[in-house]
Amino acid sequence: MQPRFSLTADLVLSREVPEAALPEIDRAVQEANTTLFRRGVPREVPDREVGRITSCTVSGPGMTITLESGGYTRAHDALFRFRKHLAGLLGRHRIGIREIEVRDYLIELQGEIPEDLRLSTLPFVREVGIGEGRITLALSVSAADLENRVPDRLVRLVEEKAEAAAYGGKAEHWELLYESPKRESRFREDPTAEMIRRGWIKHALSRGQWIHGAQSTRLFRTFESLVVQEIIGPLGFTEMIFPKLVPWEVWMKSGHAKGVYPEIYYVSTPKTRDPAYWEEVADHFKVTGEVPVNLIRDKVDGPIGGLCYAQCPSFWPFIGGTTLANDCLPARIFDRSGTSHRYESGGIHGIERVDEFHRIELLWIGTPEQTVETADLLHERYRHLFDEVLELEWRSARVTPWFMAQEGIIGGEGTSERIGTTDYEACLPYSGDWLEFQNVSVNGDKYPRGFNVKVQSGGDLWSGCSGIGLERWTAAFLAQKGFDVDAWPAEIRRRFGDAPEIFRFV
Amino acid sequence: MQPRFSLTADLVLSREVPEAALPEIDRAVQEANTTLFRRGVPREVPDREVGRITSCTVSGPGMTITLESGGYTRAHDALFRFRKHLAGLLGRHRIGIREIEVRDYLIELQGEIPEDLRLSTLPFVREVGIGEGRITLALSVSAADLENRVPDRLVRLVEEKAEAAAYGGKAEHWELLYESPKRESRFREDPTAEMIRRGWIKHALSRGQWIHGAQSTRLFRTFESLVVQEIIGPLGFTEMIFPKLVPWEVWMKSGHAKGVYPEIYYVSTPKTRDPAYWEEVADHFKVTGEVPVNLIRDKVDGPIGGLCYAQCPSFWPFIGGTTLANDCLPARIFDRSGTSHRYESGGIHGIERVDEFHRIELLWIGTPEQTVETADLLHERYRHLFDEVLELEWRSARVTPWFMAQEGIIGGEGTSERIGTTDYEACLPYSGDWLEFQNVSVNGDKYPRGFNVKVQSGGDLWSGCSGIGLERWTAAFLAQKGFDVDAWPAEIRRRFGDAPEIFRFV
Repeated sequence: MQPRFSLTADLVLSREVPEAALPEIDRAVQEANTTLFRRGVPREVPDREVGRITSCTVSGPGMTITLESGGYTRAHDALFRFRKHLAGLLGRHRIGIREIEVRDYLIELQGEIPEDLRLSTLPFVREVGIGEGRITLALSVSAADLENRVPDRLVRLVEEKAEAAAYGGKAEHWELLYESPKRESRFREDPTAEMIRRGWIKHALSRGQWIHGAQSTRLFRTFESLVVQEIIGPLGFTEMIFPKLVPWEVWMKSGHAKGVYPEIYYVSTPKTRDPAYWEEVADHFKVTGEVPVNLIRDKVDGPIGGLCYAQCPSFWPFIGGTTLANDCLPARIFDRSGTSHRYESGGIHGIERVDEFHRIELLWIGTPEQTVETADLLHERYRHLFDEVLELEWRSARVTPWFMAQEGIIGGEGTSERIGTTDYEACLPYSGDWLEFQNVSVNGDKYPRGFNVKVQSGGDLWSGCSGIGLERWTAAFLAQKGFDVDAWPAEIRRRFGDAPEIFRFV
Repeated sequence: MQPRFSLTADLVLSREVPEAALPEIDRAVQEANTTLFRRGVPREVPDREVGRITSCTVSGPGMTITLESGGYTRAHDALFRFRKHLAGLLGRHRIGIREIEVRDYLIELQGEIPEDLRLSTLPFVREVGIGEGRITLALSVSAADLENRVPDRLVRLVEEKAEAAAYGGKAEHWELLYESPKRESRFREDPTAEMIRRGWIKHALSRGQWIHGAQSTRLFRTFESLVVQEIIGPLGFTEMIFPKLVPWEVWMKSGHAKGVYPEIYYVSTPKTRDPAYWEEVADHFKVTGEVPVNLIRDKVDGPIGGLCYAQCPSFWPFIGGTTLANDCLPARIFDRSGTSHRYESGGIHGIERVDEFHRIELLWIGTPEQTVETADLLHERYRHLFDEVLELEWRSARVTPWFMAQEGIIGGEGTSERIGTTDYEACLPYSGDWLEFQNVSVNGDKYPRGFNVKVQSGGDLWSGCSGIGLERWTAAFLAQKGFDVDAWPAEIRRRFGDAPEIFRFV
């Protein structure tokens, strides 16, 4: 979309402008329009695209300036460029510029406007007009907002929303990469129901949350030991521990702050640790037997962030702001130190869709070639694991990169061909559905850029990640293989051993 | 403290009481005072301790009743007992009792009143009077509050507060049980500072939170493998997975809801997953680069609970409401599936005091004898581990049971002698302080009672738990043994192997 910007601002001066200075100001305006605002703009750009002052009036100790522009030296950029020039000029008359008050700011966007374009939630926007091929946004902004590039960000956001709205009707990108041989399954039940019946798992007291008994946990650890032997060991991934509480700052850098809000478990902190401050809350519980949630709401700060959602962003501050030596690349690490949490849609789901889950997260960093090579090695090892060891019926497919979906970015330009996500899906015989049970992503320079990590060579630095969801593996495996342990693939049977039973009830 | 209760209530009737019924009501009052209210009260209790109706007036379609009592058949109990009797009587005159309105409720407590007794935060209390040896509480309560036993809970709470205030000045109970041989330490530095210097750990972006590099993680896993070999294996603890987000319901049953509030990381959920509802939050971030925390506050429900604090409460719903077979006891389980979080005091602490930490939690359930025996076996194995394998300078001590401290209960009566907590403390040569690095607790019937778990035999069911804090072990070990791996105890050196180095910087 083609943007146009127009801006009227009052400059508050330290004293009245003397008559003698007026011709100088006129000359400065003319010079700005012909020279100053053209700086850095390609020759072929027509004048109407470039910022210009259309009016400048002096009245007492103040000036009112109106500027217009297309996409080059935008009205606000032009204003600040002119201010600098003007400050020198007025300084010679011992006049200071005390303040800039923005009277009006109008953005106009021309182009194709999709239906279902929602602009009512835009910050700083006083009034929205949507007409034939034209959007107008009247802003309430301060000079500081303009210096913070609010108009530019608004334009980018409207363009994004327009793309998303246009994209909304189309199917998600999904491209089959590999399909395993068909497998005969004798088991046709919902594995969650059977796990509950056998006492392997029990609903915990929060939504989408399970307590795993000995057998379920043993199966998780069986898978984990396989991943260690078949993936982590051979490919040389080294264990680290990534934090599990994620403050905003991490998600601001990882890009998740652009759109992850509907699915986050938010975390808040006590305003103080003073026991006296909390005594009335404890007293309320002791007297009524109920926790006074509304009282607590007023006594906490934040939210300061949320619970682990994607697993790898928390790693990045470990190397944020550094330059990596060439010879430590590719770096391959993993984390399995805690839970991830997503506020999933309501209703009853089994262990294949949970709010609290356990994932082994692999993360690698290197040159673009090294990053893609690691992804390829992983695909190879996973294929061996699922075809030869777990004997699953599964497939893999390239999909819209997950982080684009998470951030509300859809589409995107100039990404290298290999950037994106491959989903691994397993057939669920009881429903006929395919369940995404893990993925491999090549994330390009997204994280190194977000966390300001460079490489000694000065070349591109990329990263990739792969999340191995233990609940999902369990759901896929049990749905296909059932609960007759003797009929399981030999390697799983061997590692699982005798299913322990701890609790018996009367 | 000796309580007295007095209560005046209006009974709203369905119609006027006929003259003929008045003598019957008088007789009922007399009978209640002499017979009904004495039921279940020991003979030796003097009359003034037992509930009695001191006044009962009928006026139109209403009655006003005043009751007084000491600790037996308390005024509100007497009221509801009388209502039942009265309902039968009035029913014969085709009059119903429509409603009870509590006009006044006064509690008086006589006894020794400690200084620093804070009663201003008591719920339902309209007015507090503290005089010489006497506390009066004027309540605003409904009949439903009385049926919910609010006055009884208030009395118990005031008594608790009085005990706590009296206890406040005294030192915490601490009794040495064992002291290891002295160890010569050549290392005198703060291990956290050295870990940072060596790149083993790095501050994460939330308070009291670290990202652990390969070496630090390797040390955690070294300790974990030792625990598996020396404790978990020999004593037959079986792994389970306990949830890490803890809803109020769990803490209400575990007792933590009585006082854990100052140290909790609170969790809230989105009011909806509708992306349109969250669009303005995302828009705000995209345009300003800041996350709009106040806007988010209005868009979340809760807090619904908090992050894992103690590790074992989340287990209990797995067996809550059941009766365990005798022959599955003692049951020994453990969890190592995620992080624990405590809002610790501010300021700079090393890895010995963190807000986010990693703990292996052992939990056992059995008869009182089995529970104590397991604790004794653990003490024996731990002593071997710390004396012979880790070669630490350490000691153990009986302390005030942790859950009493957490719940704000101090003191307590009638607990069996073995109920309580043993802390394990290690010497920190660099500061001369002792660091609590793990504990063993015998919790009596606290959890089985809270979660309503019974045993087939009909006897007592107890439980115990032991938290092995990996950060604390690391802090204790490195503070005493330093960073010269070749000088470490042989078994640790062997398991730790070559410290991997992943990242190098230029």
